[in-house]
Amino acid sequence: MDMLSCHLNRDAEISLYEQLYIYIKNEITEGRLAYGSKLPSKRKLAEYLSISQNTVETAYDQLIAEGYVESLPRKGYFVMASGDLEYVQPSDAKPTTDPQEEKHREINFNFHPSWVDTENFPFTQWRKYAKNTIDKQNHKLLLLGDAQGEFELRQEISHYLYHARGIQCSPEDIIVGAGVEILLQQLLLLFDRDTMYGVEDPGYHLILRLLKSYPNEVYPLEVDEEGIQVEPIEKANPNVVYVTPSHHFPYGTVLSVNRRAQLLNWASEEETRYIIEDDYDSEFRYTGKTIPALKSMDPAGKVIYLGSFSKSLIPSLRISYMVLPRPLLQKYKTELGFYHSSVSRIDQHILAQFMREGDFERHLNRMRKIYRRKLEKITELLKPYEKTVSIIGERSGLHIVLAVKNGLREDELVQRAAGAGIKVYPLSAYSLGKNYENPPKIILGFAGIPEDKMETSVTTLLKSWQN
Amino acid sequence: MDMLSCHLNRDAEISLYEQLYIYIKNEITEGRLAYGSKLPSKRKLAEYLSISQNTVETAYDQLIAEGYVESLPRKGYFVMASGDLEYVQPSDAKPTTDPQEEKHREINFNFHPSWVDTENFPFTQWRKYAKNTIDKQNHKLLLLGDAQGEFELRQEISHYLYHARGIQCSPEDIIVGAGVEILLQQLLLLFDRDTMYGVEDPGYHLILRLLKSYPNEVYPLEVDEEGIQVEPIEKANPNVVYVTPSHHFPYGTVLSVNRRAQLLNWASEEETRYIIEDDYDSEFRYTGKTIPALKSMDPAGKVIYLGSFSKSLIPSLRISYMVLPRPLLQKYKTELGFYHSSVSRIDQHILAQFMREGDFERHLNRMRKIYRRKLEKITELLKPYEKTVSIIGERSGLHIVLAVKNGLREDELVQRAAGAGIKVYPLSAYSLGKNYENPPKIILGFAGIPEDKMETSVTTLLKSWQN
Repeated sequence: MDMLSCHLNRDAEISLYEQLYIYIKNEITEGRLAYGSKLPSKRKLAEYLSISQNTVETAYDQLIAEGYVESLPRKGYFVMASGDLEYVQPSDAKPTTDPQEEKHREINFNFHPSWVDTENFPFTQWRKYAKNTIDKQNHKLLLLGDAQGEFELRQEISHYLYHARGIQCSPEDIIVGAGVEILLQQLLLLFDRDTMYGVEDPGYHLILRLLKSYPNEVYPLEVDEEGIQVEPIEKANPNVVYVTPSHHFPYGTVLSVNRRAQLLNWASEEETRYIIEDDYDSEFRYTGKTIPALKSMDPAGKVIYLGSFSKSLIPSLRISYMVLPRPLLQKYKTELGFYHSSVSRIDQHILAQFMREGDFERHLNRMRKIYRRKLEKITELLKPYEKTVSIIGERSGLHIVLAVKNGLREDELVQRAAGAGIKVYPLSAYSLGKNYENPPKIILGFAGIPEDKMETSVTTLLKSWQN
Repeated sequence: MDMLSCHLNRDAEISLYEQLYIYIKNEITEGRLAYGSKLPSKRKLAEYLSISQNTVETAYDQLIAEGYVESLPRKGYFVMASGDLEYVQPSDAKPTTDPQEEKHREINFNFHPSWVDTENFPFTQWRKYAKNTIDKQNHKLLLLGDAQGEFELRQEISHYLYHARGIQCSPEDIIVGAGVEILLQQLLLLFDRDTMYGVEDPGYHLILRLLKSYPNEVYPLEVDEEGIQVEPIEKANPNVVYVTPSHHFPYGTVLSVNRRAQLLNWASEEETRYIIEDDYDSEFRYTGKTIPALKSMDPAGKVIYLGSFSKSLIPSLRISYMVLPRPLLQKYKTELGFYHSSVSRIDQHILAQFMREGDFERHLNRMRKIYRRKLEKITELLKPYEKTVSIIGERSGLHIVLAVKNGLREDELVQRAAGAGIKVYPLSAYSLGKNYENPPKIILGFAGIPEDKMETSVTTLLKSWQN
């Protein structure tokens, strides 16, 4: 056993023990100290280097903890690793700017259907509830909470669902999650592996893509002016059907009362059949009464209700929820109860307070007016172009669909808009691969366009489509 | 049009306008003021009630803002809502207390390994960053952000990983998600459907259960004093192995350098092989330096790194992240890029600020001291019982494992503790079905026990185990 000729620098920024540890580690990884060789005893090395035994011990302990060295009682310290372990630095270059920023630089107006009006969000109220919640007296909130979500929030959601959507459910039927995708992924685990799905086509593309990333069969189901057709469902025979009955995405159709009854009857015929109702923007109906949820007509418990605060509040909050029929709830508790909630408890309590104090209702009433004005404005602005551009869809929600009959193809319409700094979305992106041509159709989410920019954005868009 | 017979109380705590607003709102929701009926003019109502016109105007404005009333120029004020909006309490019997609370009522001390010290969380700092972030000037944060997570947060994480864990990665390699379960579910979608998994057994039970809920084969892999064994991996031949190299859960073993090299070699032999490194509590090492991450020794890109703020900050925040090797990252972008981020953008920016301003580092340094004191205390308190109770595990992390040789079975130990108001967790709950008896083992997470309760809780526990 040789002594270790380590040169220690008492004036260095790193401690003596660390210098010794690095020295020995390098000796091992660079092959100068071979596997199995014995290290000097603590006492001898301390003497040799004129340092304390404690310093040597700390260095040895670290080497032992990392597995470089082994301590054998009454025998000493031995090298446990061989020299081919060298630490290599990957030479990756790092991007210095956010690539997302880059991508959006040239867009002046974005008609994305997921966008909401951000300028009228009640920041003051939200900040107040955040301040109330982030408080030492709530320190227990830092620990993991109920996997289904905070009871206080689920209670507010159940009140809201009863009051606004006619749905009777108790807080224990509700599962809160970080977005509809997350909830849907959990839901899919509750169905049999060979479950076949039916989806509205065109429909909410995220759900279509999510289902397609699973091995299950997915049937596209056509939509007419009464909503989804039920006869094709009976023929294709999926087990689970995904629908947006209050306001079809993207066409805006309301599922008629007759179709609702047919759909519920279809589901009640087999135990494994279920309907997933995605009620993504029912809050925004500008004339007459709101459309009751399909779930409110479902005493047999065949409807899984999906709700979200993405449209009614803000999408980046990532709070959604589902109401499970009791047999699925039972299965969820048994099989998936070990999953932790995917939403911050603090955020759940902020939202619960916001609802409890009436701010959510006030916000909805206020936004309903703002969005109605925006829709009226866009309809008015489109009037001069009505020969070539017609609006499809109920007068509700946060988006419309334009059928454009000026001879341009869908991709040309999108490209020309992009050339004018405007981002619009083609209907084909929301279908299961089919192309919806003749006339081509474009989805316009109008919620994110400020009122004073409505005119510029719409006229610029329409001009980009003229020859 | 009748006049409104509202009795206003000038001595009430709520203002006159608010009394008037509530009165009219109730008249509408309870059906006494019908849809379309005209309200008195501001002047007339003010005269009739002997209040100022301003007060009436404020009440009307509120009703207009909430959508109950409409103002038509030169015509007057009209009721816009019908009486079936009445807010009715669902008739379901509801639990009046949180059932979670109920369950925990009789527990005085909980040694759950996921618990952290909540009393020393820097509420003031966190509240400050929340206040900064929830601000109208950040209104763009309300829209959906980058699916991989906010660039600012990923940048902070990449700095942290480089300095604290020796990992070189760029922000674009990082995906932020609402918990390790959520990230793991996404990750599983990137592997072939017939992928076989190897997991440490015993191990992190959540991962074991999650993998078992998929149809794939899952192999339990034994752990000895050097960590996971590599020969059994070569025999069982899984494609993907899940490990906790810095601090095995729950035994606390550090994967030795030799085993690390073997494991990396094994992975590099086939393109489909990957190692998932869960680095759940590496921040808390109380002697010497931290153990470098396995990922830091991985120039070949075979290690998927999972990190979390659950231990280092708080579990209920639900922010975790993974670092993907480039081929998987590419696949993620192509196949799963449509998923929205599962974490609130506001929360991501609060955390990014917390890290950027040095608060995270300060918090870790502070908590390391507190947790070390707690570990020293518990070790000391257990000394008198060393004949029957021995501690297993490295001196690090937020939990220890006790091997109890007093003749009681594992379930008896748990039950006796429960009888004394103490919740402890059996090792068998963290295994793939095997029972670890002789001697039975109990996991004690000590982080959540306040320092001044350490003595009472540990001695009560140990007394409950005596005959």
